[in-house]
Order: sequence, then C-alpha cells, then structure tokens
Amino acid sequence: MPVQAKVHYGGECQRYKRWSPEVNKIIPICFCFLAEVDEEWQGPEENVAHVPFSAEHYTEAEMIQRSKMFYELLNKRRSVRFLSDEPVPREVIDNVIRTAGTSPSGAHTEPWTFVVVQDPYLKHKIREIVEEEEEINYKKRMGDRWVNDLKRLRTNWIKEYLDTAPYLILIFKQVYGWLPNGKKKTHYYNEISVSIACGILLAALQVLIPKKLA
Amino acid sequence: MPVQAKVHYGGECQRYKRWSPEVNKIIPICFCFLAEVDEEWQGPEENVAHVPFSAEHYTEAEMIQRSKMFYELLNKRRSVRFLSDEPVPREVIDNVIRTAGTSPSGAHTEPWTFVVVQDPYLKHKIREIVEEEEEINYKKRMGDRWVNDLKRLRTNWIKEYLDTAPYLILIFKQVYGWLPNGKKKTHYYNEISVSIACGILLAALQVLIPKKLA
Repeated sequence: MPVQAKVHYGGECQRYKRWSPEVNKIIPICFCFLAEVDEEWQGPEENVAHVPFSAEHYTEAEMIQRSKMFYELLNKRRSVRFLSDEPVPREVIDNVIRTAGTSPSGAHTEPWTFVVVQDPYLKHKIREIVEEEEEINYKKRMGDRWVNDLKRLRTNWIKEYLDTAPYLILIFKQVYGWLPNGKKKTHYYNEISVSIACGILLAALQVLIPKKLA
Repeated sequence: MPVQAKVHYGGECQRYKRWSPEVNKIIPICFCFLAEVDEEWQGPEENVAHVPFSAEHYTEAEMIQRSKMFYELLNKRRSVRFLSDEPVPREVIDNVIRTAGTSPSGAHTEPWTFVVVQDPYLKHKIREIVEEEEEINYKKRMGDRWVNDLKRLRTNWIKEYLDTAPYLILIFKQVYGWLPNGKKKTHYYNEISVSIACGILLAALQVLIPKKLA
C-alpha cells in the first residue's frame, strides 16, 4: 500500500506525494542528493571565500550576436514525449544540475533538491506512481475542462519515456528547512525559486544540442 | 490615489498590484507588449509551420566540455543591487526576451508578459511604487522573522538601481486568458511557467558576460 513521503526529506513534490514501500526501500541510492535537504543553517557566510564580481562585457555588436545565437539555440528546444535511450555521461548530468544550482532564490535559501535516478527498476517504479496519479488527473481530479484543453497536445497518462530515458532528474521544492535549534526555517518563495532553477536547468540541457554559440 | 491595475491586462504581478494614476497615463508606451496579453485563443495550431525536431547531439567529450563551460559561465552570475547605467542595444533585450519566450509552459499557454521600460520618468514612478510596497514589507507586512532572515543580505527597501538600469524588464504572470467567446481561459501552473521562463531569461542575460563557450 502506498505511504506518504517522509517529511524529513524536506522536499515536497507536487505530483509525487505518494511513495510505494518498494521505492522507500530503494531510495537510499539517492541520499547523496537528499542529504543536502537537511543541511544546517550556516549563519552569515563568513567561511565562504569572497569571489569578486566582474562587470566585464562584450561590445554591443558581440552582445547582439551572442543574444541572437542563444535565442536560436534555445528556440530549438521542444517538449517531447519520446526519448532516446542513448547513454549520457553522468558528468554531464552533474554539470547541468550544478548549473541549475547557481540560480537565485528567495533570501538565498536555495530551496531545491535534485535527485538523479538511473536504476531501471527504480525508474519503472516511479513511472508506475506517476502514471497512477496522472490517470486520476485525467479521469477525475482535474475535470473535463483540463482534459479538453490538453486534447490538442495529444497527451495522456502513459509515460513510456520514464523507462526509456537514461536518467530521470526529480526536482523537489523544500518548503522549509531546519535550523540548528530544531526549529523550522522558512523558505520564502520556494516554488518560484525552484521553477527559476528549472529554467536554468533546461537552458543547460539545451546547450548540449549542436548550434554554434560563436 | 493609487488604483488597482486593470484586469484586462490579463497579467498579475505579485508585488506591484497598485498603480498610480500617473503610471496608468504613461503605460501605453508598453502596449506593444501588453497587447499580447489579450491574444485570442488560436485553436489547434494548423496555421503554424511544422519545425521538425532534431535529435543531433555532440560527442560525449564535447557534451562534458560544453556542460562544464556553461556551468562556469552561469556560476559567475551574481544578484547585485548596484547596476551600471551603460546603454545596451535594445536588440539585445529583445533577443533575451524572445529566448525567455521559448520556455515550456503548462498546456502550452505561455502565460507571461514581458514589459520593457526605458523611459526615465516611468522607471522612477515604478521605483516609487516598489519602494512604497517594500517599505511596508519591511516595516509590517512580512514580520520580524522575514526582516531578520534578510539581515545578512544587507538589503532594504531603497532601490536606486531601478533608476540607474538602462532598462527594467517587468515580468507579469497571466493568471488567465480570454477565449474568442469572451470566457476565461485557464492558465494552468501559470506561476511555475513564468518562473521557468525567468530562469531562461537569466541564462540568456548571463551569456552576455565574457566567458568563452568553446
């Protein structure tokens, strides 16, 4: 029987609130990521080296050229529902997630957790949970209007690509964190902050698509 | 006396809900952008040319290299509260906003409006509204805890940079749109969608900072 995700993960995922016991058993492979969730409040960052801000920039012509090239690159992005199973070096995924982690966030709380899943069995268990929830969305939760609005996109609750993709990147918002004194630490604008980080993640992935950037 | 923003803009901005009559008088300079807000429902996109998806990608070594370079570039981004007044070609800003507009969105509703403000008088009026609202945030709306949490960031409600920057890009979420029959069109996940677009906008701006991308 499915159970609630344990709150000590500190992350809350809108869609995947229920985890089957099997998933709970397997989830420790992700602890390298989830461990960050309970990271303690560091106080003023006195131990962090100061990196001076550089205000260098390109010439006007170069800026026009670069902004145009980046637009053309990002404009090639498509939301697809069929994915390649070709392997991708793990280092690429790590760099992409590090890039997302440079995102700004409300009061610099960095309220995100990225979980990379590569294990085929775990990917399949996640697919089952997602499809079960999505089927409820389509059949009763979201209503006729939502189903009708999605018709032209020709989507449904079957998500084969969750098995196919070499990696799944699960993105969690941390609605709060913990202070050393055991009290909750508010994460202001956590959903907005995590979504901005997702935008940067998408840009970082699109940089892997060939299109010369000058 | 400040008045509510007119709902036919279709956009709602969390912080700047009140507009002074002066701003309302001036706002038509932005209509080229705001006009998009009332865009009619196009139905299935039969008139839009089909752009085939390309699944080309770099070699593994190239992907590692590019993902690393992009991380290093984005990692140079800083949230600053002092800005240069140096002019920037408008074409650059347009390209950056076009790039943000390639973002995915819930049910492809694209529920965003970007308003570029260059007029010094209008920028100053916006600064006044923002500072007025922010002063309320600091002094009573958000509470002691919020004020305390922000202390280490050394921020306050004074935002000189809103006068200094050559452009302000105001970003609105469209909580709903309009159908040709005059009924409201739901914009699913509008805040998440707009925030993802903001992440892509930030990436596009950071591409203007010198750091070779190979």
